[in-house]
Amino acid sequence: MEVSIGISNRHIHLKEEEYKILFGDEELTVCKPINQPGQFASNQFVNLKNGDRIIEHVRVLGPLREYNQIEISKTDARLLKLDPPVRMSGHLEGSAPITVIGPKGEIELKEGCIIADRHIHMLPEQAKEFGLEGVETVSVELKGEKGGIINNVYLRVAPNSYFEMHIDTDDANAHLVNQGDIGIIIK
Amino acid sequence: MEVSIGISNRHIHLKEEEYKILFGDEELTVCKPINQPGQFASNQFVNLKNGDRIIEHVRVLGPLREYNQIEISKTDARLLKLDPPVRMSGHLEGSAPITVIGPKGEIELKEGCIIADRHIHMLPEQAKEFGLEGVETVSVELKGEKGGIINNVYLRVAPNSYFEMHIDTDDANAHLVNQGDIGIIIK
Repeated sequence: MEVSIGISNRHIHLKEEEYKILFGDEELTVCKPINQPGQFASNQFVNLKNGDRIIEHVRVLGPLREYNQIEISKTDARLLKLDPPVRMSGHLEGSAPITVIGPKGEIELKEGCIIADRHIHMLPEQAKEFGLEGVETVSVELKGEKGGIINNVYLRVAPNSYFEMHIDTDDANAHLVNQGDIGIIIK
Repeated sequence: MEVSIGISNRHIHLKEEEYKILFGDEELTVCKPINQPGQFASNQFVNLKNGDRIIEHVRVLGPLREYNQIEISKTDARLLKLDPPVRMSGHLEGSAPITVIGPKGEIELKEGCIIADRHIHMLPEQAKEFGLEGVETVSVELKGEKGGIINNVYLRVAPNSYFEMHIDTDDANAHLVNQGDIGIIIK
């Protein structure tokens, strides 16, 4: 079956405490809602730093969360000389350390930097309809001149989800996939 | 069957005329031989430019060729705001324009910038041995945590080849593949 593709560029999720250190009194404001209900791209940006390596202008995603999490691609990781693990959102134990710089302050995180796993958001009723109840991962075919099949795509089945596959910019650029393109779920 | 993987970072091939404009009297010198016989990574570097976008420190591959060709990834292309086609080496008609800056001069190429196609170098006797005579493309399985299958991998069957698959940094980073890792050729 077909699934629409959302491409996640590098971004950061922040807790309230760390947000205040980085941004002071500046409010976290909505630039644009994203497809997952309640989530948004904000107008706030940070820089990511490791040693003498820096990536500038990394967007904060809102709303604020219960954990600090930085999602980057392997290409970004090589630039920063970091070796983040591939992880599901929120599973941060032993993930990579990173320094985050905001307009008002700087924080050194001992962990929090990951490469996000490939995943598909889906409602429980959709998992049932698609015959995917209890399935942990699927493969997804990507068409095109540099197409292929990507493995280990995790299913995130939850109420209040928007049905969509999230891949990072490395997966998208390797396969010449654009935002909103279609993948084919292979059980 | 198994094939060793070589990862091609962005690089440039130059004709003698353009090399001299960029480098003057400086000789093209060998930094390190690469696996394809006679080819080498040189000690010479250029910058790539399009409008106000620049990528610095791009290596010249030697020896000099009969055409100027710049091979970049889609990630690089987005940074440079270019839209190069996926092409086989030397097939440059209608490929992307780009400006190349050397220590002694600068050239504006009307075409020459491509995303190299995925390909496997192989001897004629190997193509025969593997049952791949006359086959144009194969798919290749990449193992690992972000593994998958890449399609449209072109066979380059020629004498004096070193058996190896070449993919770009986007394909490698998307699949967390390192230089010298093994892929499985699927007919």
